[in-house]
Amino acid sequence: MRIFAVHGITQSGKTTTIENIIKQLKKRRYSVASIKDIHYEKFAIDQEGTNTHRHRMAGSELVTARGYYETDILFPKRLSVESILRFYTQDYVVMEGVIDTNAPKIITAHGTEEIDEKLDDTVFAISGRISNELKQYKGIPVINPITDIERLVDLIEEKVYEKLPEFPKECCDVCGYNCRELGIEILKGKAKREDCMIGHENQNIKLFINNQEIPMVPFVQKILYNAVIGVVTELDGYQKGGNLMVKVGER
Amino acid sequence: MRIFAVHGITQSGKTTTIENIIKQLKKRRYSVASIKDIHYEKFAIDQEGTNTHRHRMAGSELVTARGYYETDILFPKRLSVESILRFYTQDYVVMEGVIDTNAPKIITAHGTEEIDEKLDDTVFAISGRISNELKQYKGIPVINPITDIERLVDLIEEKVYEKLPEFPKECCDVCGYNCRELGIEILKGKAKREDCMIGHENQNIKLFINNQEIPMVPFVQKILYNAVIGVVTELDGYQKGGNLMVKVGER
Repeated sequence: MRIFAVHGITQSGKTTTIENIIKQLKKRRYSVASIKDIHYEKFAIDQEGTNTHRHRMAGSELVTARGYYETDILFPKRLSVESILRFYTQDYVVMEGVIDTNAPKIITAHGTEEIDEKLDDTVFAISGRISNELKQYKGIPVINPITDIERLVDLIEEKVYEKLPEFPKECCDVCGYNCRELGIEILKGKAKREDCMIGHENQNIKLFINNQEIPMVPFVQKILYNAVIGVVTELDGYQKGGNLMVKVGER
Repeated sequence: MRIFAVHGITQSGKTTTIENIIKQLKKRRYSVASIKDIHYEKFAIDQEGTNTHRHRMAGSELVTARGYYETDILFPKRLSVESILRFYTQDYVVMEGVIDTNAPKIITAHGTEEIDEKLDDTVFAISGRISNELKQYKGIPVINPITDIERLVDLIEEKVYEKLPEFPKECCDVCGYNCRELGIEILKGKAKREDCMIGHENQNIKLFINNQEIPMVPFVQKILYNAVIGVVTELDGYQKGGNLMVKVGER
């Protein structure tokens, strides 16, 4: 799963940029999903007076509204991006206005001051209204989201890498960086996604809960690997180097 | 996780019954969640014109709206109850108007004809408006959801069992029944939840090497189970009772 964010103030062309990116990615046969952060204190998708709102008011901790054509799972709290992404399986996830992430970013803006406020090493493109005036800014390409969407999505395909974990450096620095730093090095072309041992093919033990992969730092990978191998090597039928799978069902 | 459904036509006291059940369960310190089935063709929780609606129209296959106090994951399709429940971890899940389930049921009604239409062996209580007139019907207790909520929730605690799987008989009949039949036998007191080998503490752990199941005596099952669970319970993303899979492959 490849994830990236689009940041920009109101009316800078953010949602239009995202719409066109989604359409173009779909045209290229990717599966695409999105997350929208709503910076409005009173936001509530469920209206007062609905039955689901009554469930929630009575104390229901997780409410789902299921219609004929949609299913809405309503968590009564702010989930972290990592928790939300556990529900996602698509090729690309576009995040609108989401700040608590290390993912690569596109900035949309009216002018250069707005860019300067948001510019950091995770930005790989600039788009939105400013693209009518500039072609590049401080070495970052400025691309029109309407007339030049193909080039913008070419750049997404080139730059946006398979999602990295978000571990603190104390938990894992096997690649020599923390996760955010590695992301920046990948964007610069100075490192590769494969330098991360987690969520990649060179990881030899994986853990899934309800079909979602649970990331483990190498230290934990080793403990789990040793725990499993330690038990099963003694069993009749064990093959060294065979593909091994352990399943634990619902209790 | 214990799940049950409440069925009844409009104005039969369905949502009031559910509200009072949720409040009473919470009072008894259970965690509670709910699912509401909306039988209204045009139901759409997200209003036209919002940014999330624009994402969806552009082709986003899964949209999340995250505010300061809620996170709404909007699937643009009808999910099965089994799929929805994968997001749930609470002690009790109350389902309003959900039909595609084998779970025990409470019927709410105005009169006996409405009961007769819905009555089957999965019904363990009747509530709603009819409870002003009757105390029992065809051997099923009729309980007032306002004045007698404690007795209704006592009955829920007594009758509603840990969720059963929903396998077709061809996949599993180890207990001698299919899953729906076993549920009915449990409600009648003629079988126990433990008769199901799946989703219970006596659930076995399975080991596969190169897709071949390696048989393990219960003693070894327990060692491997403890070894795996001992490591993974501490991980972020671990869900008690979730389906767990560990894969070990060649590097």
